[in-house]
Amino acid sequence: MCAAWMVMVLGVVGMVWGGYPMVTPTVGQIWPRPQMMESRDTYMVVRPDTFSFKTVGFDCDILQEALKRYISIMFPTSRSSKAENNQPWRKDQDFQGYLDELQINLLTACQDNPQQHMDEQYEIKIDSPDAPGEGAIISHSIWGILRGLETFSQILIPDASAYYVNSTQIRDYPRFTHRGLMLDTARHYLPLAKIKESLDLMAMNKLNVFHWHIVDDQSFPYVSTAFPDLSKLGAYSPAHVYSAEDVAEVVEYARLRGIRVLPEFDTPGHTQSWGPGQPGLLTPCYSNSAPDGTFGPIDPTNTNNYDFLKTFFTEVTGRFPDHYVHLGGDEVSFSCWKSNPNITAFMAEHNITGDYSKLEEVYITKLLDIIANLPKKNGYLVWQEVFDNGVDIANDTVVHVWKNENVPAAWKNELNQVTSAGYNTVLSSCWYLNYISYGVDWYKYYQCDPQDFDGTESQKQLVLGGEACMWGEYVDRTNLIPRTWPRAAVVAEKLWSSSAHTNSTDEASPRLEEHRCRLLARGYDVEPLWPSFCSADLN
Amino acid sequence: MCAAWMVMVLGVVGMVWGGYPMVTPTVGQIWPRPQMMESRDTYMVVRPDTFSFKTVGFDCDILQEALKRYISIMFPTSRSSKAENNQPWRKDQDFQGYLDELQINLLTACQDNPQQHMDEQYEIKIDSPDAPGEGAIISHSIWGILRGLETFSQILIPDASAYYVNSTQIRDYPRFTHRGLMLDTARHYLPLAKIKESLDLMAMNKLNVFHWHIVDDQSFPYVSTAFPDLSKLGAYSPAHVYSAEDVAEVVEYARLRGIRVLPEFDTPGHTQSWGPGQPGLLTPCYSNSAPDGTFGPIDPTNTNNYDFLKTFFTEVTGRFPDHYVHLGGDEVSFSCWKSNPNITAFMAEHNITGDYSKLEEVYITKLLDIIANLPKKNGYLVWQEVFDNGVDIANDTVVHVWKNENVPAAWKNELNQVTSAGYNTVLSSCWYLNYISYGVDWYKYYQCDPQDFDGTESQKQLVLGGEACMWGEYVDRTNLIPRTWPRAAVVAEKLWSSSAHTNSTDEASPRLEEHRCRLLARGYDVEPLWPSFCSADLN
Repeated sequence: MCAAWMVMVLGVVGMVWGGYPMVTPTVGQIWPRPQMMESRDTYMVVRPDTFSFKTVGFDCDILQEALKRYISIMFPTSRSSKAENNQPWRKDQDFQGYLDELQINLLTACQDNPQQHMDEQYEIKIDSPDAPGEGAIISHSIWGILRGLETFSQILIPDASAYYVNSTQIRDYPRFTHRGLMLDTARHYLPLAKIKESLDLMAMNKLNVFHWHIVDDQSFPYVSTAFPDLSKLGAYSPAHVYSAEDVAEVVEYARLRGIRVLPEFDTPGHTQSWGPGQPGLLTPCYSNSAPDGTFGPIDPTNTNNYDFLKTFFTEVTGRFPDHYVHLGGDEVSFSCWKSNPNITAFMAEHNITGDYSKLEEVYITKLLDIIANLPKKNGYLVWQEVFDNGVDIANDTVVHVWKNENVPAAWKNELNQVTSAGYNTVLSSCWYLNYISYGVDWYKYYQCDPQDFDGTESQKQLVLGGEACMWGEYVDRTNLIPRTWPRAAVVAEKLWSSSAHTNSTDEASPRLEEHRCRLLARGYDVEPLWPSFCSADLN
Repeated sequence: MCAAWMVMVLGVVGMVWGGYPMVTPTVGQIWPRPQMMESRDTYMVVRPDTFSFKTVGFDCDILQEALKRYISIMFPTSRSSKAENNQPWRKDQDFQGYLDELQINLLTACQDNPQQHMDEQYEIKIDSPDAPGEGAIISHSIWGILRGLETFSQILIPDASAYYVNSTQIRDYPRFTHRGLMLDTARHYLPLAKIKESLDLMAMNKLNVFHWHIVDDQSFPYVSTAFPDLSKLGAYSPAHVYSAEDVAEVVEYARLRGIRVLPEFDTPGHTQSWGPGQPGLLTPCYSNSAPDGTFGPIDPTNTNNYDFLKTFFTEVTGRFPDHYVHLGGDEVSFSCWKSNPNITAFMAEHNITGDYSKLEEVYITKLLDIIANLPKKNGYLVWQEVFDNGVDIANDTVVHVWKNENVPAAWKNELNQVTSAGYNTVLSSCWYLNYISYGVDWYKYYQCDPQDFDGTESQKQLVLGGEACMWGEYVDRTNLIPRTWPRAAVVAEKLWSSSAHTNSTDEASPRLEEHRCRLLARGYDVEPLWPSFCSADLN
């Protein structure tokens, strides 16, 4: 009956049954693993019908919404306790009393929006030596309070009539500031409900950047007020779009969970869907000395295009409050540019004949210049090709390393190159979750470390974090959640927890098994890791 | 506005957009493709509020239930038509009138249960030359009527206010009698709701055998009345079980859809979960001359075990009405038998020292003998190893070929061997859907043909069909439907339609794209095939 005993015993048992891996879940362990934690055998009891949060510091809408949310996450069914006669702890010497109130102590006024390098540190004290019989979450930041609430919800251990929580002290903070999940709404449309489910799961895994790859070759679902034809002619259908209100709804939903929304508008390649709504934007491709009706990347020689981009990105950066925007820049094909006589003439004029990387640089340089001079003065991320192609980029550019999933030496070398040039970086190469395979595939995600490359300590400090990417060619609302989770949770722990404590899949397995059952019990279709069962998989 | 025109134009257009495959769906095409079909440009109009089925032949509960079901499948929203003023067909010369009544002409009394070699042939006539302005589904069998109803539901083309249906004649029947889907409820429990969803989708793809791999090493969810300890001690939990009522519910749900339920109780290997509930059943393994607490396959030397099997299979074959039971027999490991001195003594006594295949044969021969002499006299299927190991099996045994997914020459050779020995066979080797990979993976399923092996025409007649297998190590209720579908639909067409019409993935692609959107619109989480969209993927 003693909760602490259960945790300790169940936490270390793994077993093999019938030759197949079968992992016994921990009970009341935390995912991602906190930086510092002490837990004793003594415990307090939380009764759903009498428990409440008590704000003792600063307060704001984000906090109030979070407290409401976590009450229903922690106590999913009725809040009325069972009959008083079922209280096995009463005679247990480890029972330290009822935790009827959890203090929420926010030490500094709320910020409005989550941002890069936001403070996410928090402390949890349950029946601590300096405050026996009490409980508190303490943080200098609303974002830390949010992370602490998630942690607190995970250490509650349900019993027949109430919840146990061990005497616990936690001091926790993230290893990296940029902990992202990229979703792609261009290859398949994702309804808002599925984006929100993804944000819920991100918050439950302490991920804090939703990288929204919103448009691509296949479709343009983003509704621009300045250029409504982009979605009118580029979306899959008039219904497969994200209006300004939809975007605002996503941004607000994310903000309340301490998640940044990083929009990506990838140019000059990956822009086929932009063409119909913005004549003159794309390069006409030529066959046999005449335009053949197909189009290539954005035409860097058409000066009107820069006016378009300025207006377009002014609107985008106004609509997304984050200080960063992702500008793409990957996989620019030169074949169409090569076919077009106007491009050839332009290049001759600028003394860059034959050097299409230089032509790309002409475009990117102008684009970065536009972005840097917008009213909101956003920073930007770019995919690694922009760096690889030698484009002259600003010092505060963040280079997103994504290539060579199966060649660790190559992406490690890229991280070295990028950081030795002094740029911040974010790693995704090893976390392309869209590449599925048969069997237990999460070990490799857990073995990847964004700072594991040859480089100085100061180079490694330039690694902001990483992102799990779920490209959408084969993913839509039907399979998004099970295909992404719990695999993205594995990435989340690598990005939050200390490297010293995230190098053993054996240690992680029973915690991950508990976490997957936890997320399932919370109502999310999180797929299994191996032969297993959860109490929540009956319906 | 003319429906026939739409079908013709949209049916043949495929396009590539932005370098990615993107397939335009057909409109009103049938999956799986019927054997013979003629369709003209003329059409009739079906108005949901006035349409009804009219039974003009035999009738039964299966038929009545099916008619109710198809009304809601065909008209998912309200049945009230839109305002009369929206009737664009009125002045169209191809308009042949309203189809207010579809005759259901069942020419022979209903059978109670679907079975191997059941008659599934049917005809559909819509505005045919011999009955202009009328519509009918005609069959000698209730199973044919069910298949015809599914076909009819697929040729309705929705318009703003009603449905078009072209003047059409179809004569259709399956290529193979055994068209199965295997699900595994032992590695993960599947709730009844997901089994029923699977049966719905099977019916919509004219699959007719639900092979229920109900127990395995990992868990024993089948509740036996004679041996309740099997599930009490072998299920994942007391809730992760299928009671007699649950089984009856699945069997009835399948029966109403013309689907056989083929239960598999795999022995003598894959039986770890049987052990706790039936002491003495499994072989104790020895280390250092003493039992080490682990167990191997069923102990063939314990004569009590044959009494157990007789009682157990008497119950099983009573609970499942199908004339066949799947007895497994795959992957028997000999290492535990080798360690056990009693086994060694038994083998010496029977002059089979060292030949463990012969020991397996002792077991299998007795098991088959038991099954053949049960009151219900079931036939049986076995996995290919039983044949490969030279066990003396009865003439009416069906050998299930499953090995060598990636070595077509090997399974083709197996089909040759099995059929040249005169046995019926079912193929699964090329249709192991649990093996997932990145990208478009269905082409390979479509390119597999169970009769494509060296052998005489009479050997090929011994191929009863095939089964898509979805083993459950990494599959539970969260991902079962999207991972299985539409991939199992590809197998379904190969098994139903003629080989002459199922050899082009180019031809199949637009129909499959329509079919995936159709199943999505019907409420099933059928995953996408490539970058695409459906009107139903907005919520």
